[in-house]
Amino acid sequence: MSTRLSQLFVRTLREDPSDAEVTSHRLLVRAGYIRRQAPGVFAWLPLGLRVKAKIEGIIRDEMARAGAQEVHFPALLPREPYEATGRWTEYGDGMFRLKDRKDADYLLAPTHEEPFTLLVKDLYSSYKDLPVTLYQIQDKYRDEARPRAGLLRGREFTMKDAYSFDSSDEGLDRSYQAQRDAYERIFTRLGLPYVIVKADAGAMGGSKSEEFLHPTEVGEDTFVRSAGGYAANVEAFTTIVPDEIPLEGLAPATELAPHDTPTIDTLVAYLNEVAPRADRPWAGSDTLKNVILALTHLDGTREIVAVGLPGDREVDMKRVEVAFYPAEVEPATDADFAKNKGLVKGYIGPRALGSESFTGIRYYVDPRIVSGSAWATGADAQGVHVTNLVMGRDFTADGVLEVAQVREGDPAPDGSGPIETARGMEIGHVFQLGRKYAEILGLKVLDENGKQVTVTMGSYGIGVTRILAVIAESNNDEKGLVWPENVSPFDVHVVATGKDQVVYDVAEKLVADLEAKRLDVLFDDRPKVSPGVKFGDAELLGVPKIVVVGRSAGEGVVELWDRRTGERTPVPVAEAVAALVNG
Amino acid sequence: MSTRLSQLFVRTLREDPSDAEVTSHRLLVRAGYIRRQAPGVFAWLPLGLRVKAKIEGIIRDEMARAGAQEVHFPALLPREPYEATGRWTEYGDGMFRLKDRKDADYLLAPTHEEPFTLLVKDLYSSYKDLPVTLYQIQDKYRDEARPRAGLLRGREFTMKDAYSFDSSDEGLDRSYQAQRDAYERIFTRLGLPYVIVKADAGAMGGSKSEEFLHPTEVGEDTFVRSAGGYAANVEAFTTIVPDEIPLEGLAPATELAPHDTPTIDTLVAYLNEVAPRADRPWAGSDTLKNVILALTHLDGTREIVAVGLPGDREVDMKRVEVAFYPAEVEPATDADFAKNKGLVKGYIGPRALGSESFTGIRYYVDPRIVSGSAWATGADAQGVHVTNLVMGRDFTADGVLEVAQVREGDPAPDGSGPIETARGMEIGHVFQLGRKYAEILGLKVLDENGKQVTVTMGSYGIGVTRILAVIAESNNDEKGLVWPENVSPFDVHVVATGKDQVVYDVAEKLVADLEAKRLDVLFDDRPKVSPGVKFGDAELLGVPKIVVVGRSAGEGVVELWDRRTGERTPVPVAEAVAALVNG
Repeated sequence: MSTRLSQLFVRTLREDPSDAEVTSHRLLVRAGYIRRQAPGVFAWLPLGLRVKAKIEGIIRDEMARAGAQEVHFPALLPREPYEATGRWTEYGDGMFRLKDRKDADYLLAPTHEEPFTLLVKDLYSSYKDLPVTLYQIQDKYRDEARPRAGLLRGREFTMKDAYSFDSSDEGLDRSYQAQRDAYERIFTRLGLPYVIVKADAGAMGGSKSEEFLHPTEVGEDTFVRSAGGYAANVEAFTTIVPDEIPLEGLAPATELAPHDTPTIDTLVAYLNEVAPRADRPWAGSDTLKNVILALTHLDGTREIVAVGLPGDREVDMKRVEVAFYPAEVEPATDADFAKNKGLVKGYIGPRALGSESFTGIRYYVDPRIVSGSAWATGADAQGVHVTNLVMGRDFTADGVLEVAQVREGDPAPDGSGPIETARGMEIGHVFQLGRKYAEILGLKVLDENGKQVTVTMGSYGIGVTRILAVIAESNNDEKGLVWPENVSPFDVHVVATGKDQVVYDVAEKLVADLEAKRLDVLFDDRPKVSPGVKFGDAELLGVPKIVVVGRSAGEGVVELWDRRTGERTPVPVAEAVAALVNG
Repeated sequence: MSTRLSQLFVRTLREDPSDAEVTSHRLLVRAGYIRRQAPGVFAWLPLGLRVKAKIEGIIRDEMARAGAQEVHFPALLPREPYEATGRWTEYGDGMFRLKDRKDADYLLAPTHEEPFTLLVKDLYSSYKDLPVTLYQIQDKYRDEARPRAGLLRGREFTMKDAYSFDSSDEGLDRSYQAQRDAYERIFTRLGLPYVIVKADAGAMGGSKSEEFLHPTEVGEDTFVRSAGGYAANVEAFTTIVPDEIPLEGLAPATELAPHDTPTIDTLVAYLNEVAPRADRPWAGSDTLKNVILALTHLDGTREIVAVGLPGDREVDMKRVEVAFYPAEVEPATDADFAKNKGLVKGYIGPRALGSESFTGIRYYVDPRIVSGSAWATGADAQGVHVTNLVMGRDFTADGVLEVAQVREGDPAPDGSGPIETARGMEIGHVFQLGRKYAEILGLKVLDENGKQVTVTMGSYGIGVTRILAVIAESNNDEKGLVWPENVSPFDVHVVATGKDQVVYDVAEKLVADLEAKRLDVLFDDRPKVSPGVKFGDAELLGVPKIVVVGRSAGEGVVELWDRRTGERTPVPVAEAVAALVNG
């Protein structure tokens, strides 16, 4: 098939769109692939739709190979199933809700665990029916707070979401692996390098969870990896827990004389001055810092909690959000402090916190705060710190939380060496949901012994429109887009330049020959457009193989341009087709 | 490709779903093609999705052939463009509206004239860019008052909507014809007989409008046609207007003595008694009946209007709705009468109505009420009628409206003879919008002389999911579905019966041979299912070609079943492939 540029519905733009904050958005709009309709809501023009269809084709292909079957759910769904699982509320402002003419509540689905679970419940009843993995490629809706990165975070976006259903944990492992393998094949075919990282599973209530990240400096996600092969996103990184220390014989806690030491640095300096250690100077990591956070629970109630962590580390708010999900978290305000008179700002100590304390504020500590570890920390009075405050002897906590900053050089939890941090973009997520949804929605099957067992599920997602943007983000240069071959809107872009009839005759014949070889050809046949504009458009549109039919056409020579390398090779027109088919 | 029924996500049902009111809904649910998620909202199971994809494939193919280019708009759209054209309000309860987290108004688009117009305005600026026809296959939303006929009238449904853009009326005619021709090819390929009928263009503000109807007794639309080739839906039928009669010399109006004649029948009987005609008896068609209707305008105001028509015809409420769109219409209530003291129920005459009357109620008349025509009608006093009340002499009207019932035997407006009525289902609509949307939204291009001209548009729609239901509605028997070949989910359904290994060996080989011929095969390989259940499922699913591999497999014989005719033909297995490929 061929498409004539003179007929194609496209208009390239010289100027960047004023609202484009990322490269992919800028280039996809300028090259006429998409148009913005509202914040985070886009229309697809013919070129964009072609690329999207190619990505979807590769996904469908690999889903079929993995034994997954395609279905299609509505975007408009009734409230009740999402109410049952709590997500009607949990999604907060992130979910679009609406009412029909009878005042019944509906949502525009942000993800489809509930209806998939109910569908399998409707149709299947025996372990013999399982395993089954179903998927859809479908438009989803999330009312993002800041839909600013073009297709990377849209409010209406296309997603491939798959769900597996098994009657046993081993079955789930197999179904999960099949999807994971399919994802590896998909990203390979899409020409998209990826890292598989451990991800936090907490928010969705499941167990195993891995993300596929495309490593890129402009990525919005930070992940960590060790030379020994460990990889995790920062939310899922776990700290190596030191051994506990027997409490017997530890030095007693000692209060220091009051002094103005409101920060960790001033405290460390003061410690080295008034209570120097024999072995080495005091460091921030010897101190225990207590950070006060304010949670807003789903029911709207506000709760103050405290987190204790080594003084040389900050709290990582992304890890905090995961830890306290679905509550919203922010730093405590002056008003919060005012309401809790026991909290002495700058000198908050563990003794003011936790269930056994005088404030009653819940207190969580970093995994490094093990029983027997001794800390210099606040003593809950203005200017006063205490040393040798021992966990398990002088204070306790309500739980352990991983909310401290992760740093380059921290040891990987699997012993594979120190980690480094890198940036990436999430391109896929595979996830063992377990029995949460099946339990709530009553999806059970009869097992071999005629007993009802709850089905265990997996959930597997790829953001189709997001991936398209990620590919654009990593495949471009100052002139425009450079598509990987498998997703390019066309296989070849033939550019005819000049006014000689022979040029157009040669070009027409070449296009026909390429079509005969089943290549999709974009043919720039515009008679009154200058070569410069045509070349600029070709480079902006980003088809990886360009053929220029120009001045030398009369002598039977055309020029092959490799859009990625910039290489230009004159070839006899008779050889051009073979070169393009094989190249 | 082949699909094993043992693996396919499907469960056939013996019972009709309790909420199914039409055959297509009943069968598509029972055969495992769709599942209801909410009123008028359905999920597509693998079999249903296959049929839908085939229909979409044929549509895409013919759209490309007609030179239309595919794009894709969001369903979620901002209010403003629809506000500009008035449709934000006009759609009333039929449109799903919602707000985002910033309280901005959005809608789920019921149709996309506005964003298509704005897109072309964004990209194009010259007559040289035109014509262009764009289309999408996309999920639309309408909050139907009674979403009860399965896919025939869904609230979320898939539609192919195309829009043409031209700089001249002649161009619009050509673009319109190209889509009309494509529709003819599409319905032919879909195996869906159709009639093209004139449709009313008023509601959308355009000029020419035709509907494609699939004639079927269970159709919800009534249309009329003449033996001479006229066809129109009832809303678009026009009455032949009689010649006006000179007013001079017409007999004067005569009031009859009061008598209890509240109906046309009692009036005619009374007329024949007290004022017999010389030429023939009085008939209902000699009387003029005035019907009082209550309009509710978009701004919520209620207005009483009157319609005068020959007494032997009722008002057709569907025609009334079209005539008064976008106001809602209902018969006037007792309260309305109470408020308009001049209206004497049963004896309302033209003199009480119209701008020159004492009630001030707007008065519209049937086209047969021409100047000089004389009528027996109400005299606005209890029990009193008047004869020889002459239009243009004794009364006037505010306008002419086509709201009377259309009857078999009425003359076609094009002189092609008397009409008959028939029933059908709408399967497509082609429509010349003209300049309405372009005017409001400012879509202009420069013409040959450098002058700004407003673009003229066409709008062309096919309800994809509706068509699927229409096909199912017209292609079934008491055993289940019978798909036309072009839309069947599979080309061949191979049923292996019995327990002999040879049966499965022969069947596997046959399936492989059919796959090699590029046929899509559904293979019922279920080992423990009885032949009766397998046959029942095959007949319910409706693949038109069934091959039964059973008892005679050992002798190399299989049986070909033609699902539509029921014919069963034993053939040597060696010949089966050729028979299936060619048959």
